[in-house]
Amino acid sequence: MSTSTGQQDLFEPETDKMTDAKAAKAAKDKADKNGRAAETAESMAKRQREISVSEFFTKNRHLLGFDSPRKALLTAVKEAVDNSLDACEEARIQPDIVVTIARIGQSEKQFTMTVEDNGPGIVKAQVPNVFGRLLYGSKFHRLRQSRGQQGIGISAAGMYGQLTTGAPVRVRTKPGKKSVPLAFEIKIDTARNRPEFKDTVIEWDKDHGTEVAIDMEGEYRRGQKSVEEFLKLMAVANPHVKLTFKDPDGNVTEYNRGTNELPKEVEEIKPHPHGVELGILLKMMAESENRTVSAFLQQDFSRVGPGVAKEICDKAGIKPETNPSRLDAAAVQKLKAAIDATKIMAPPLSCIAPIGEDLILAGLKKEVEADFYVATSRRPVVYRGHPFAIEVGIAYGKPGDTLHMTDAGKIVEVATKKPENQEVLMGNADEPIRLIRFANRVPLVFQQSACAITKAVIATNWKNYGLQQPRGSLPIGPMVVFVHIASVWVPFTSESKEAIASYDEILEELRLGLMEAGRKLGTHVRKGKKLANEFKKRNYIETYIPHLVVALKDILKLDEKEAVKARENLTVVLEKSRKL
Amino acid sequence: MSTSTGQQDLFEPETDKMTDAKAAKAAKDKADKNGRAAETAESMAKRQREISVSEFFTKNRHLLGFDSPRKALLTAVKEAVDNSLDACEEARIQPDIVVTIARIGQSEKQFTMTVEDNGPGIVKAQVPNVFGRLLYGSKFHRLRQSRGQQGIGISAAGMYGQLTTGAPVRVRTKPGKKSVPLAFEIKIDTARNRPEFKDTVIEWDKDHGTEVAIDMEGEYRRGQKSVEEFLKLMAVANPHVKLTFKDPDGNVTEYNRGTNELPKEVEEIKPHPHGVELGILLKMMAESENRTVSAFLQQDFSRVGPGVAKEICDKAGIKPETNPSRLDAAAVQKLKAAIDATKIMAPPLSCIAPIGEDLILAGLKKEVEADFYVATSRRPVVYRGHPFAIEVGIAYGKPGDTLHMTDAGKIVEVATKKPENQEVLMGNADEPIRLIRFANRVPLVFQQSACAITKAVIATNWKNYGLQQPRGSLPIGPMVVFVHIASVWVPFTSESKEAIASYDEILEELRLGLMEAGRKLGTHVRKGKKLANEFKKRNYIETYIPHLVVALKDILKLDEKEAVKARENLTVVLEKSRKL
Repeated sequence: MSTSTGQQDLFEPETDKMTDAKAAKAAKDKADKNGRAAETAESMAKRQREISVSEFFTKNRHLLGFDSPRKALLTAVKEAVDNSLDACEEARIQPDIVVTIARIGQSEKQFTMTVEDNGPGIVKAQVPNVFGRLLYGSKFHRLRQSRGQQGIGISAAGMYGQLTTGAPVRVRTKPGKKSVPLAFEIKIDTARNRPEFKDTVIEWDKDHGTEVAIDMEGEYRRGQKSVEEFLKLMAVANPHVKLTFKDPDGNVTEYNRGTNELPKEVEEIKPHPHGVELGILLKMMAESENRTVSAFLQQDFSRVGPGVAKEICDKAGIKPETNPSRLDAAAVQKLKAAIDATKIMAPPLSCIAPIGEDLILAGLKKEVEADFYVATSRRPVVYRGHPFAIEVGIAYGKPGDTLHMTDAGKIVEVATKKPENQEVLMGNADEPIRLIRFANRVPLVFQQSACAITKAVIATNWKNYGLQQPRGSLPIGPMVVFVHIASVWVPFTSESKEAIASYDEILEELRLGLMEAGRKLGTHVRKGKKLANEFKKRNYIETYIPHLVVALKDILKLDEKEAVKARENLTVVLEKSRKL
Repeated sequence: MSTSTGQQDLFEPETDKMTDAKAAKAAKDKADKNGRAAETAESMAKRQREISVSEFFTKNRHLLGFDSPRKALLTAVKEAVDNSLDACEEARIQPDIVVTIARIGQSEKQFTMTVEDNGPGIVKAQVPNVFGRLLYGSKFHRLRQSRGQQGIGISAAGMYGQLTTGAPVRVRTKPGKKSVPLAFEIKIDTARNRPEFKDTVIEWDKDHGTEVAIDMEGEYRRGQKSVEEFLKLMAVANPHVKLTFKDPDGNVTEYNRGTNELPKEVEEIKPHPHGVELGILLKMMAESENRTVSAFLQQDFSRVGPGVAKEICDKAGIKPETNPSRLDAAAVQKLKAAIDATKIMAPPLSCIAPIGEDLILAGLKKEVEADFYVATSRRPVVYRGHPFAIEVGIAYGKPGDTLHMTDAGKIVEVATKKPENQEVLMGNADEPIRLIRFANRVPLVFQQSACAITKAVIATNWKNYGLQQPRGSLPIGPMVVFVHIASVWVPFTSESKEAIASYDEILEELRLGLMEAGRKLGTHVRKGKKLANEFKKRNYIETYIPHLVVALKDILKLDEKEAVKARENLTVVLEKSRKL
């Protein structure tokens, strides 16, 4: 740099150094006017260097969900719970998770977040990498549904803890009954994105499992967007999980299992040819162990048999037995065009595990008291070669606000009772509905307005289903709408995984799912309105019949028995005339 | 994995292999019921591996702004232009940039994007890294304002080109008159995040400069969110730049300089002690070359002199001559607390270069025809130790829609003319205002609703300034609002740098800047309304005075000369009475 501001200028900007500074500035101005380069290619080159991914995310920690102390606590819990559930399900273990948030000393600003699971544990060599290195993991390269997918989350939580308290991440893990339990203290060297750690053999009275504890700056609050609410929503979408939450004040909340069945085991798939982009195809061909294009197509993709492989090669004008490494870029372009022009069976759907209508209903009923429930689980489809499925659930109407017809056909007003969890999940009749969003069974708590799910709910015409809806807004009413996307790769709008990107295929499926559930809701809402009208009318009848009967009794000189009979008959006739 | 689905199952799902598959499934179900681990810590460990940052962003390319072909073209132009302008300004060269978008063959789906500058060039050894490696650059570690800051952008554009067309990035560069011009072809090995390249000596009739050309899938359109619009906005915030745009149909648009002065040269600063977090402080101390805490505080931070250093050490109960490496974590915590409790001068502001009120007005006047212009450039302040400044400009009122007072005090209706660029930048009187957002002089085109700037504009009460404003929305009116944030580190909501994260300090400065400009606007809008009323009244007077004069002439038997005089006097009296 041509500017020669020394250290002193910064420290003592108003000293007698100003004369020098002025002279330097004059010289610089002159240099500028002469068009002389203040910096040159050479001077710039000296500063060029690699940026470690940890440094990048330390400076950009809001991208990872660590932008405020309050959010940080929730994000850390989310990442740890995600990992525990993924590990338990892969190992086919019914998850039993304990989340604890405790103050450090008397501090209201520093907390220890601890998540303990009964999962399969982690082998010694991998522990430091899993917790002390960003972009490291087993889920990124694999095409199958899981909560984690980036290899960033839990290390990022640890990095945030280290940044704000200087403390290392503490991990205890035991991979099986006969394994030796180990405790680790792990720090991230952010300049290299590598762990620094020490480990010790410990006693741990547990068959298998992992516990991670992170000290961090945080802010603990209840209510909306709290750890508590996140865990409640987690329980809605994961009825197979037992969750225990211990808050900083010593309160313990338990979410018990609604089912003993684990989600269907998901299988890894190969990429589908229709999703592949040219650059990826070139890379796959370069890396393939197969020696003919035909074998390459069949072995490295899903849904390509010998017939389809031959069809593709024919269309591309390439001999099936050509060695893939001998095709030039132009030939691969032709191959790509041929793939796109060939009909190929949709990818196998064994790679994803939607929740299913029954369990969505069970989850909603467990956590939301409502008058009416409906769920829709759509058949999986594909975006960019990635299978995904959309599921929608609706819980409508606060008990007490609505009318019921008894089995005997009698309409009654149900006594208002205060459902235990209602204040958290369902709003009032004159408030916007409550939208709860999930991706691969994980609740999405932040960035609602940036999410494709929200956009799809707003774009749906809820007036068709009997609800009010201000233009460009969520509908109004006592309703919880549950939306879940299950996919081998969920496209999030940022690394913090808070909102879904608006891919056209995803928006379209959301639209269809919401309409499907909406139609069923509409029938109920209209029936409810009809019932309410009936109720009013019937009250009217019941009010006036006695007066009618008194008059009739008078006019026709009826005795008491005849009057009772007349009253019964009148009621029957009037009700019939209303065609109930 | 215990699931034994072979390749065949995926290819021929409806063959006689089903019996085997069923048997395997039955065995697996049984395994599940027995609680046996389908996966173990060992089997999972085998799949754990590093994820390269290039692979990560290939799969997540929407994070980089490459989610649709249309957006991809604009994002690539933005990244290339950002780099060119940064390089020119650092080298104190008046930028002259040529952007070309050309179809590849007759394709409507594939384009070559070329950006050529007259910058300082790039030295041979750095070219492959700059264009073929993500998270590599000179701007990330430096505290001074620049357009680029992440070391991702241009390599990401190249990676997208490679992904969609298979073609390498082509670069020509010449670092100076006497340098040998070179041409490069560069590909990214995404698995390693490293460049593969070849270079050749070429002829290039140019003193110095760089040209980058990328073949990519794209979609070319005009209008909102187009390359054209981006360049127009670029010209608004960068009046010192000459921009030439050649579109795919051969049209050439030129944006000429509005000033010959380069932006103020920015200087790199050291971190300010008040912004530093504990983890960073620990790291800085570990890496410091200074042997005493006092020297460390003075040399490694800005605004700490001997006095302040002593005050901090005293408060922390640490001797100033202690070696930093000998402090334990608890002592460093105390040091941090002492720093926070000490008054320290705000960081030097030489690191940022706001545009300034005059040039904002010049830029707006150059590209938006309006009736009234106002600009506010706020004094820089600090968030998390990072200096930043907010600037607001307003262009209000379409010529032709409003009234003017001439120098002689006469109110006239201006004839409606069609300003050249108006259709792009300013809406009609009954439409929401047009908000144009900038960060470090770069227009932000996408994700308007997610941006702190938009939130601040919506939160401002524009009714105070005479505009209509629906609740929770942008105000209504013929108005362009220009907002600029200049900072050493702009916190974007994603790597694509499309929206600003909502830090409290930034929201507050935005609020103050908008209010400041809004008040000046309010005076004008109210004056405009008053003028409109005056105009109506005056028309009234001018309509009736002749009749009055005729009547007076009649009653008082005035001659022609006296009648003219009476008319003049009457007009003066009436205008006076209205206190014009």
